[in-house]
Amino acid sequence: MSQLGFLQIGKGFRVDLVMHKENRFKVWNNFKLKYPNINLNGKCILVKGTPTTYRDDTDHEELTRQESYFHYLFGVKEPDFYGAIDLSNGNSYLFAPKLPPAFAVWMGEIKNNQYWKDHYKVEDCFYVEDIEKTLKSLNCDTVCVISGVNTDSGLAHQGAPFEGISNFKVDKDLLFPVIQNARVVKSDKELDVMRYVAAESAKAHSEIMRIVKPGMSEFQLESHFRHLIYCNSGCRNVSYTCICGSGPNGAILHYGHAGAPNDKLIKEGEMLMFDMGGEYHCYGADISRSFPVSGRFTEEQREVYSSVLASQQAVMDAMKAGVSWPDMHRLANRVICEQLKKYNFLKGDIEDMMANYVGALFMPHGLGHLLGLDTHDVGGYPEGTSRSTEPGLKSLRYGGLLEKNMVITVEPGIYFIRAVLEPAFLNPQVNIFLNEEKIRKFLDFGGIRIEDDVIVLENGIENMSRGCPRSIEDIEALMNS
Amino acid sequence: MSQLGFLQIGKGFRVDLVMHKENRFKVWNNFKLKYPNINLNGKCILVKGTPTTYRDDTDHEELTRQESYFHYLFGVKEPDFYGAIDLSNGNSYLFAPKLPPAFAVWMGEIKNNQYWKDHYKVEDCFYVEDIEKTLKSLNCDTVCVISGVNTDSGLAHQGAPFEGISNFKVDKDLLFPVIQNARVVKSDKELDVMRYVAAESAKAHSEIMRIVKPGMSEFQLESHFRHLIYCNSGCRNVSYTCICGSGPNGAILHYGHAGAPNDKLIKEGEMLMFDMGGEYHCYGADISRSFPVSGRFTEEQREVYSSVLASQQAVMDAMKAGVSWPDMHRLANRVICEQLKKYNFLKGDIEDMMANYVGALFMPHGLGHLLGLDTHDVGGYPEGTSRSTEPGLKSLRYGGLLEKNMVITVEPGIYFIRAVLEPAFLNPQVNIFLNEEKIRKFLDFGGIRIEDDVIVLENGIENMSRGCPRSIEDIEALMNS
Ligand SMILES: [Mn+2]
Ligand SMILES: [Mn+2]
Repeated sequence: MSQLGFLQIGKGFRVDLVMHKENRFKVWNNFKLKYPNINLNGKCILVKGTPTTYRDDTDHEELTRQESYFHYLFGVKEPDFYGAIDLSNGNSYLFAPKLPPAFAVWMGEIKNNQYWKDHYKVEDCFYVEDIEKTLKSLNCDTVCVISGVNTDSGLAHQGAPFEGISNFKVDKDLLFPVIQNARVVKSDKELDVMRYVAAESAKAHSEIMRIVKPGMSEFQLESHFRHLIYCNSGCRNVSYTCICGSGPNGAILHYGHAGAPNDKLIKEGEMLMFDMGGEYHCYGADISRSFPVSGRFTEEQREVYSSVLASQQAVMDAMKAGVSWPDMHRLANRVICEQLKKYNFLKGDIEDMMANYVGALFMPHGLGHLLGLDTHDVGGYPEGTSRSTEPGLKSLRYGGLLEKNMVITVEPGIYFIRAVLEPAFLNPQVNIFLNEEKIRKFLDFGGIRIEDDVIVLENGIENMSRGCPRSIEDIEALMNS
Repeated sequence: MSQLGFLQIGKGFRVDLVMHKENRFKVWNNFKLKYPNINLNGKCILVKGTPTTYRDDTDHEELTRQESYFHYLFGVKEPDFYGAIDLSNGNSYLFAPKLPPAFAVWMGEIKNNQYWKDHYKVEDCFYVEDIEKTLKSLNCDTVCVISGVNTDSGLAHQGAPFEGISNFKVDKDLLFPVIQNARVVKSDKELDVMRYVAAESAKAHSEIMRIVKPGMSEFQLESHFRHLIYCNSGCRNVSYTCICGSGPNGAILHYGHAGAPNDKLIKEGEMLMFDMGGEYHCYGADISRSFPVSGRFTEEQREVYSSVLASQQAVMDAMKAGVSWPDMHRLANRVICEQLKKYNFLKGDIEDMMANYVGALFMPHGLGHLLGLDTHDVGGYPEGTSRSTEPGLKSLRYGGLLEKNMVITVEPGIYFIRAVLEPAFLNPQVNIFLNEEKIRKFLDFGGIRIEDDVIVLENGIENMSRGCPRSIEDIEALMNS
């Protein structure tokens, strides 16, 4: 059980919940900086936590996973809370659900508002039913809520509806750009949590390399990963559904969903493409490793793997604060084209390939994305920016410059996807670059992705997932140890 | 990967999807039997499957778990489907989402409607966008949808909204009682799936008994269980959040939720109360075992444990088709009172205890519930029936007579819950039965529940979870082997 003021699962990382007090201060401060001419008296921020939810019409209670913005500000793991920040003075308040006495029989000890106040380090805690009364007593007349569209999903945030909201002015414009932006660059405390979850996830990936063998089903490695990351590291959730592709399935970018549930048998000689990450205190890791089930790369596997690795390494070597992320995407693409030319998958001039987006035929996704409380973390395209419409680049989830203490994934890949390549063979604009005979031999190869989670530094990066080997030599050594 | 017409995960049970064709026939047939005077021409059933869902406003896609009624009728594991049954002739149709070609890059091969038709054994498959057109071509003018309140949750079913529904009459009365009732008694094929998931879950419980030791965190056993049931048995989901209570936490009936996430250290000398079950093809198991972490029952643990076991055994011995479930609940209570009197927790006359609901002070929940596609399966209180308001009995989730091939849990328990017992010590109506001094010694003991999943037979029961030991001797033997 966690100590008052801390979150710790088993022997996992001990999170000082003052981290969220700092986050609240950052949002309050950034709010003032962004709107220096706005009068903050009478204004407060109100955010709503995840409610208790049930599956369909049943009483099957879903395991609560806190909504990310609410978690960012308050770090509360329990459902049915609200939180407020008085913008006039930065004071924070929580609103807890008032639970009936019978709750104790089914769900355990009912904690009082003093406990929540002390544990989550807010100025005070009241009941949800008293939100209106409390805000009025703070002289609040305007409630600023989160209202805007997530640039990865296109979905709108639900705001913070509460009983009595109609007795306030509701501002839907001011808060969203501030809180979205606050999450993009991580604090030192956030980075420590992310270092932990990335390192533990990398460790679990390494263990998977040792465990896997032909004849296992893909899902058995998903099961092992989930177990390793929970039992050893305290991550009850993975940050996204595990992708455990063997052979051709390695070329299905989001394999593993309910319609393709990692249920293939792994066969001798196949490549594996495993994309899995744990989540701790809602902060996620997102790591991919590709390796041969045999533990020894064949010549063909070596060609493709070393091409992706060269691409990833070129990007990692070039990354630092101030660098453009779309430029890094183009760099990754260029190295992939160069490598594929070197190994006779491609022919012709590299500049011509770049102009014709030949790289996107093999890597149809973006180079990487912001990572944090969401796997595709918010803030990729803040107001005033827009996505490229170019192939590949249009799938890039962050379109700006790298900043110090951003966390971002670096995940180039090469995939042999029939649905992409068959039309390309027929397309005169790109088929002139394709060595069709060689590529056809790889149509059942699958794909390779190497994905690491890095912190952007002033003059380079810190690779938080370096604990899991990437080089051919290190992978072979680990798998045969 | 599953063969056409079957569902099989790894080496797990091979489900013949004709099971759902039988379910559809049963619903059609029961519909005709219940409404012999209704003209079925122009009427069809329409049900909606689970849509693709995202966490809050993010692009974090939730792993689809099919809505239970839809699953019952069609067995489809993919999201975004609809299904129909033409009531005039019993023909069945699926409606699949029309996926954009880019889907293949991210999610894998797009299956065509012929595949769905063959795999899920329906008469034909069309696109969701063609529901209106298709139903019109079947001469359907009235759409019967599921509309009613789940008696366990009190929540209403969402029906089957679709584009063009306003061009049909929508009947919300006819279908619900028929389909709810159809799920109560299981078919032979359903029973086979349930035997599998109960047996595998029992096996995993046995393994947990071998693994656990003092110094582990409760959640590590949750992790082991989830891993065992997935890796060995193909159950990607558990049927409900694992309850892994040690010591006092054993008395929190629904321990393990986000606010109490199985995060206590297990200490020498404690009792454990683990309630966990796997889910396979959406059919669940629900098994509880209680045992001392030391592997040897102390005298105190023996008293409470043997009392619960005697209660469970008395019920199991009395159960058969035709028996009243509330009577079984009362029997369980009576044996608990007798046992607690024998061990000096209680004093006085058993009939007086029964009249004053003394048993409910130690077992505040119901004896057991229907089990199937939902852990608390539907049909507990069909129209015309109502719940008792008596303590304990009011929490009983099934109020009728046992029928052959019902699946129900038998789960008596004895818990020492401060929130229940402290008021009872002060209540003159019941404190005369309580040996307060002895009971007080057990206030940190926690609780004991023994829960098995049984099929009701003509002349008894089949205990599907018998693979995990229940007797003190068998548990001690297993834990020390
Ligand atoms: Mn990623
Ligand atoms: Mn149960």
